[in-house]
Amino acid sequence: MGMTATHVTVLPDDEIGNAAMAELSARGVNTEYIQRAPGRIGMYFYENAASLRSPKIIYDRFHSAFGAIQPGSVDWEQVLAGADWFHWTGITPAVSANAARVCKEALLAARKKGAKISGDINYRRVLWQYGKSAQDVMPELIEYCDVMVGGVEDFKNCAGIDETSFEKACEKIVKQFPSVKKIATTFRETIDASHQFIDAALWSKSVLLKSSRYELFPIVDRIGAGDAFMAGLIVGEISGKTDSQTLEFATAACALKHTIEGDVNIASLEEIEALSQNNNTGKLLR
Amino acid sequence: MGMTATHVTVLPDDEIGNAAMAELSARGVNTEYIQRAPGRIGMYFYENAASLRSPKIIYDRFHSAFGAIQPGSVDWEQVLAGADWFHWTGITPAVSANAARVCKEALLAARKKGAKISGDINYRRVLWQYGKSAQDVMPELIEYCDVMVGGVEDFKNCAGIDETSFEKACEKIVKQFPSVKKIATTFRETIDASHQFIDAALWSKSVLLKSSRYELFPIVDRIGAGDAFMAGLIVGEISGKTDSQTLEFATAACALKHTIEGDVNIASLEEIEALSQNNNTGKLLR
Amino acid sequence: MGMTATHVTVLPDDEIGNAAMAELSARGVNTEYIQRAPGRIGMYFYENAASLRSPKIIYDRFHSAFGAIQPGSVDWEQVLAGADWFHWTGITPAVSANAARVCKEALLAARKKGAKISGDINYRRVLWQYGKSAQDVMPELIEYCDVMVGGVEDFKNCAGIDETSFEKACEKIVKQFPSVKKIATTFRETIDASHQFIDAALWSKSVLLKSSRYELFPIVDRIGAGDAFMAGLIVGEISGKTDSQTLEFATAACALKHTIEGDVNIASLEEIEALSQNNNTGKLLR
Amino acid sequence: MGMTATHVTVLPDDEIGNAAMAELSARGVNTEYIQRAPGRIGMYFYENAASLRSPKIIYDRFHSAFGAIQPGSVDWEQVLAGADWFHWTGITPAVSANAARVCKEALLAARKKGAKISGDINYRRVLWQYGKSAQDVMPELIEYCDVMVGGVEDFKNCAGIDETSFEKACEKIVKQFPSVKKIATTFRETIDASHQFIDAALWSKSVLLKSSRYELFPIVDRIGAGDAFMAGLIVGEISGKTDSQTLEFATAACALKHTIEGDVNIASLEEIEALSQNNNTGKLLR
Amino acid sequence: MGMTATHVTVLPDDEIGNAAMAELSARGVNTEYIQRAPGRIGMYFYENAASLRSPKIIYDRFHSAFGAIQPGSVDWEQVLAGADWFHWTGITPAVSANAARVCKEALLAARKKGAKISGDINYRRVLWQYGKSAQDVMPELIEYCDVMVGGVEDFKNCAGIDETSFEKACEKIVKQFPSVKKIATTFRETIDASHQFIDAALWSKSVLLKSSRYELFPIVDRIGAGDAFMAGLIVGEISGKTDSQTLEFATAACALKHTIEGDVNIASLEEIEALSQNNNTGKLLR
Amino acid sequence: MGMTATHVTVLPDDEIGNAAMAELSARGVNTEYIQRAPGRIGMYFYENAASLRSPKIIYDRFHSAFGAIQPGSVDWEQVLAGADWFHWTGITPAVSANAARVCKEALLAARKKGAKISGDINYRRVLWQYGKSAQDVMPELIEYCDVMVGGVEDFKNCAGIDETSFEKACEKIVKQFPSVKKIATTFRETIDASHQFIDAALWSKSVLLKSSRYELFPIVDRIGAGDAFMAGLIVGEISGKTDSQTLEFATAACALKHTIEGDVNIASLEEIEALSQNNNTGKLLR
Repeated sequence: MGMTATHVTVLPDDEIGNAAMAELSARGVNTEYIQRAPGRIGMYFYENAASLRSPKIIYDRFHSAFGAIQPGSVDWEQVLAGADWFHWTGITPAVSANAARVCKEALLAARKKGAKISGDINYRRVLWQYGKSAQDVMPELIEYCDVMVGGVEDFKNCAGIDETSFEKACEKIVKQFPSVKKIATTFRETIDASHQFIDAALWSKSVLLKSSRYELFPIVDRIGAGDAFMAGLIVGEISGKTDSQTLEFATAACALKHTIEGDVNIASLEEIEALSQNNNTGKLLR
Repeated sequence: MGMTATHVTVLPDDEIGNAAMAELSARGVNTEYIQRAPGRIGMYFYENAASLRSPKIIYDRFHSAFGAIQPGSVDWEQVLAGADWFHWTGITPAVSANAARVCKEALLAARKKGAKISGDINYRRVLWQYGKSAQDVMPELIEYCDVMVGGVEDFKNCAGIDETSFEKACEKIVKQFPSVKKIATTFRETIDASHQFIDAALWSKSVLLKSSRYELFPIVDRIGAGDAFMAGLIVGEISGKTDSQTLEFATAACALKHTIEGDVNIASLEEIEALSQNNNTGKLLR
Repeated sequence: MGMTATHVTVLPDDEIGNAAMAELSARGVNTEYIQRAPGRIGMYFYENAASLRSPKIIYDRFHSAFGAIQPGSVDWEQVLAGADWFHWTGITPAVSANAARVCKEALLAARKKGAKISGDINYRRVLWQYGKSAQDVMPELIEYCDVMVGGVEDFKNCAGIDETSFEKACEKIVKQFPSVKKIATTFRETIDASHQFIDAALWSKSVLLKSSRYELFPIVDRIGAGDAFMAGLIVGEISGKTDSQTLEFATAACALKHTIEGDVNIASLEEIEALSQNNNTGKLLR
Repeated sequence: MGMTATHVTVLPDDEIGNAAMAELSARGVNTEYIQRAPGRIGMYFYENAASLRSPKIIYDRFHSAFGAIQPGSVDWEQVLAGADWFHWTGITPAVSANAARVCKEALLAARKKGAKISGDINYRRVLWQYGKSAQDVMPELIEYCDVMVGGVEDFKNCAGIDETSFEKACEKIVKQFPSVKKIATTFRETIDASHQFIDAALWSKSVLLKSSRYELFPIVDRIGAGDAFMAGLIVGEISGKTDSQTLEFATAACALKHTIEGDVNIASLEEIEALSQNNNTGKLLR
Repeated sequence: MGMTATHVTVLPDDEIGNAAMAELSARGVNTEYIQRAPGRIGMYFYENAASLRSPKIIYDRFHSAFGAIQPGSVDWEQVLAGADWFHWTGITPAVSANAARVCKEALLAARKKGAKISGDINYRRVLWQYGKSAQDVMPELIEYCDVMVGGVEDFKNCAGIDETSFEKACEKIVKQFPSVKKIATTFRETIDASHQFIDAALWSKSVLLKSSRYELFPIVDRIGAGDAFMAGLIVGEISGKTDSQTLEFATAACALKHTIEGDVNIASLEEIEALSQNNNTGKLLR
Repeated sequence: MGMTATHVTVLPDDEIGNAAMAELSARGVNTEYIQRAPGRIGMYFYENAASLRSPKIIYDRFHSAFGAIQPGSVDWEQVLAGADWFHWTGITPAVSANAARVCKEALLAARKKGAKISGDINYRRVLWQYGKSAQDVMPELIEYCDVMVGGVEDFKNCAGIDETSFEKACEKIVKQFPSVKKIATTFRETIDASHQFIDAALWSKSVLLKSSRYELFPIVDRIGAGDAFMAGLIVGEISGKTDSQTLEFATAACALKHTIEGDVNIASLEEIEALSQNNNTGKLLR
């Protein structure tokens, strides 16, 4: 989306890792801080859906090279040199104790550098299998966040906040984690696998903003829609949009992802802006 | 769908027949009573559809190895050993006099064994080309059925029952064929090739049950939907469901088939149950 | 659609040109008057769309072998021997001064022969790059037309007629170009890239006819829909349909094209007739 | 190969037949005398080969629409108007008594017109199933041939000539069938499915010419190589080549076919000429 | 190859496991004793090769559901009821201590039943990672074998026999493991990735037999060639062939596998017999 | 091959250009100095070959955005900051006068910076169409080269040196262009399109070195083999190999390219080194 991004992870030191490196580079992501180590890469198998049949995802992501990442192995000072923003997701600390530790290291370094921090809580129950629960680990990471994406289920599982209202949950979150300034989430109404509606909300300094609502029909591939939303939020924040513009931009990014095969949102900045401003939706672009 | 099934037919004794055998085995169908003989396999060419364009099917099924099946060549005693159910379709007696005779042999053996019998009338005018009409042949086969699938057109062409009301037609059927206890059929409302509604009815002991109605949009491939319905009915009956549960299960199976490419309903028992109970329709299954 | 058609153009004298010749022949188009010359073929790159994402077309059609066509190089007398109809589009005179000249030669020959003439105005701003504007060139070509396809934007850009009402624009057109007897156009309502409505109008001797309106959902590929409409109009005119039948036939052809991948409307005469008469839309054809 | 050819056959009057028509047109074959009738098209299933594994072909060509062709249904006068050459193959009279009769009608008309006649004997034992043997039928067709392609096995089965030497067999053939002036055949040496050698011989007025020998490695697809050879022979004869040039041209066409997927020799006249003159074999053509 | 085979393993209880079950069933393998359990399936990524470029295989087979198989979980009495033969490979005991234990259980049961036992040593250094070496575990499994496949490297790593001559190594093996009666191995000469030669040897009761030598060019896919050889040996032994016939049959199976994409030797019994008897190699089979 | 490379060109400012950017990034090429401008990208259509059929390439590269590059538009100072090497090919000055001028600007800047300069002469007659001949333009570019790739035909057409011996031509070249220190070329012996031999020579300070000779069979795709050779030479030079090692490395890179589909040599440094040292050619790499 026109910004410079650096991805930090561990990839296998084989052709599978090379292919992942190439794909990241092709998408304009800086790969220079990616470690290469023996091991496997996390995978998933995805069966796409249509109409009354649900999509299915089978994860095969345990025992990855990334899970074995060594605390201290990343020179966060250097990685974050000149960075305005650091983003992490709740998948990382769920994978292994080491990954959680490295995540914490990064957060400390980012705060020290003065970079803004966002976290996508992304609670996945089946991931937490190394002896600690999300509630053991997540709070000490969330407390570094300026911007957060999560829904009421995430808040309950990761911070023990039991609220069915997103707005009330947000109020409790900022009380518990005073550095958090903005919280966003998406809402999905499912008619069936091909036909859904999506909108989003952004809670910012006690104000709850609601986005436009998009009808998605037919859905091409929904995987990666949450990441597209998160990316849209960050781009909006960095580029100085208003909260409302940011929310609309992120929601449009999320909606567009549903029209793209694969889990990467290859929609361009211009396409997302156009959709968020309701220009030319569906018109033939010559 | 979790049951043991044996398919009896004749397949060419060449690689095409081998491929058919492998496909049946892959789907869990017992192939040990399939005969192999010189000749061809019936085929069809299918052009899928979208929106305003209709799907087209071109049959090329005359002169098949199956049509030349020899009466007496199947040891039905052995095939039906331990069988709870025998199913036949109206395609078989339409293909050749020999095929009709073998079908009759099977019905006699099944009744003797005490297996329940179902028949899918499936009237296809163009098939009856060996000198006998459906009305000459079908009645003596239908009279063995416990459960039957057919619509008013089938009843007219195969049993001379001229009724536009499914319910009234059913009443006449059971009068004419006292062994028939249950009759089911599906109803399809066609907006266009991509957008249709389907529901079904089960007439059982003078009671007419109507199923839930499914909106199918977009339709991926409708071929095999009738067979999926039939299979659902049999599974419902064998597994001791109530009439209403059986009807809902069969209709859900039929509806799900529309979301699957090819003419085989590979939806699992769990998927069909979930849809028939309206659970998680279209939700991402992790 | 059951008629004999001859295409006149220039194709590269290499395997790319051979492939184009073969494709035209496969569709039943007479290719004997196609010139072969060194050079390239105009191309476009097309990204199909879905739902909220727009389709995109990137043209790469400058510097083609066709653009270098030589005035006088086509023996129009011979080409048009026995022809009832001549059709040209506004793409041709936009490509080069030579192409415009050859187009004029054809029109003179066609009028002399007494063939009916149709023109699809098809104004594309980016094409006019050889020093003349559409308004410089198009009027002297339009004046030969009996039947014309175009919308109010086309009329403005090619004939200086500034009217937002199609009907009023048509009245001005026929005043300015007295040979024009019928003018048709399509109207597209865009919900998104997958979901649109289409209908059309035919202005004939001061009467404005409106066609049926088709819901297109999902759209498979819209490229070529305008050409399908034009072809439908010509077939209707030649085969002696009434204005209303012709309009319905052309609109059905246009609508069906949206269900077909690629830019060639391979729908048959029978399919178009059936849709235009609302028969069996979406039903399985056995 | 730059000549005008007309194919006479019967194709199904459905989309399968349409597709065959389109393919023939794309290859420049005139299809105007092809009859369309209800029925099926002969087919084969082909499994390609490599190295030690043999290719396999499964024929499914009985009961075709062509087999039911009606004697008298082709106006050979009109078909052959202006024709220099008529070609038939031994497949045709093998298919049905009617097909044999139509073949005879064509031969009579061709001789009357003064067209040269070629026949590819192409004996296939499994085809002759309508009550007559090849020896019953073929001799009265062969007697019309000017040019013939066949090997010693063909001669034995179709004309009762039992000779293992091609040359001696040719001498007997011309004695028995005085109109035959030239006989050609190909010889294949098989190392394995990927690696073979091919050459050919042309017996012409008591002289036996041998062609160059081609090493074929790797073979892409050998199906259609015999037809490519036959076509090369006819083109050579019509275009006035010497016997030796004709033989080399036909053998090069046959050899090139082995490098092309599918059973149609799409090699161009120029490619065949170049190979037959040993120019640039395998060089990158820019 | 015409024999009944039962495969015992553990597959994931998800769609990936279902797909593996279906593939095994399609190939005629009895799957009724396959356990289903949570977890992953071992995988490999394969890059095929050509000419000077080597094929590459990246294994990702640790942490599989199979590795977690529970001792005692297989009722070998029942599995082996009526079995003439039991086969195991050195991959199994390498995967985990549990897998080694289950392998031992099977061997005890097989010997008790009187089934012949074969083992493919298949030493893979990178696999032995659970704390025991091949030399710790393999000898007590090898001692149950009647027939064994392995080369001198396997013997060194699994049994400490350091001999460069296959024949001498065999003599030492049978001294150390008196139940072993026959030992076979393949020899591969590599020109490059597309061009290789293969032959094999069978040591049986102090006699060393050498097979025919096959030139493989081009190689389609070599993965699975060892398993094809092993399967050929077993089929030969069970079907009462002589040692020499068995060796030729197994070598032909191994050679044919090189012509087939994927790691399953789908060559039929007839194809293998034909190659082993040098019939029709590469000829078109009609 | 493990080195940092920057590519300078002009790409269209559309999705086609974006795709090219992504592909370059995926291969690790720095794209920051690539200009984006309206226009098209040069293309070619390639028909691969087999055995006796030649590969064909149809170029469509005139009128590209690159051809319109503006002199002075590249800040070579900045591009070359820290660069050890600058490489150009004879394609560039052939495309347009502007491209030739920009090439000259780059050479001046590179010499000023002290970067080593290599040029691949790559004479293509059909390209020189802007009014100057290769002999008008190339000499003033060649005179900056330290290392050059070219054959006797290139030397004749670009420098007027008419010598059939590569060695003698080299001697004349260095006399005429004193800065040239090393000249390399490849030699190809063509059996047919699938089977060729390749070797190379490096003339360095009056010594002519000959490389190993590789048999290429079957050839997968030869396009890009010259570029692979050139890249190998540069890597060898930069990494301080001896002349002989450099030549072997470059020839191995060239040979490996023939085994890879597409025109990019994705072989790794390790693969090339292994082949150049004759290690494990064709062996399965686990």
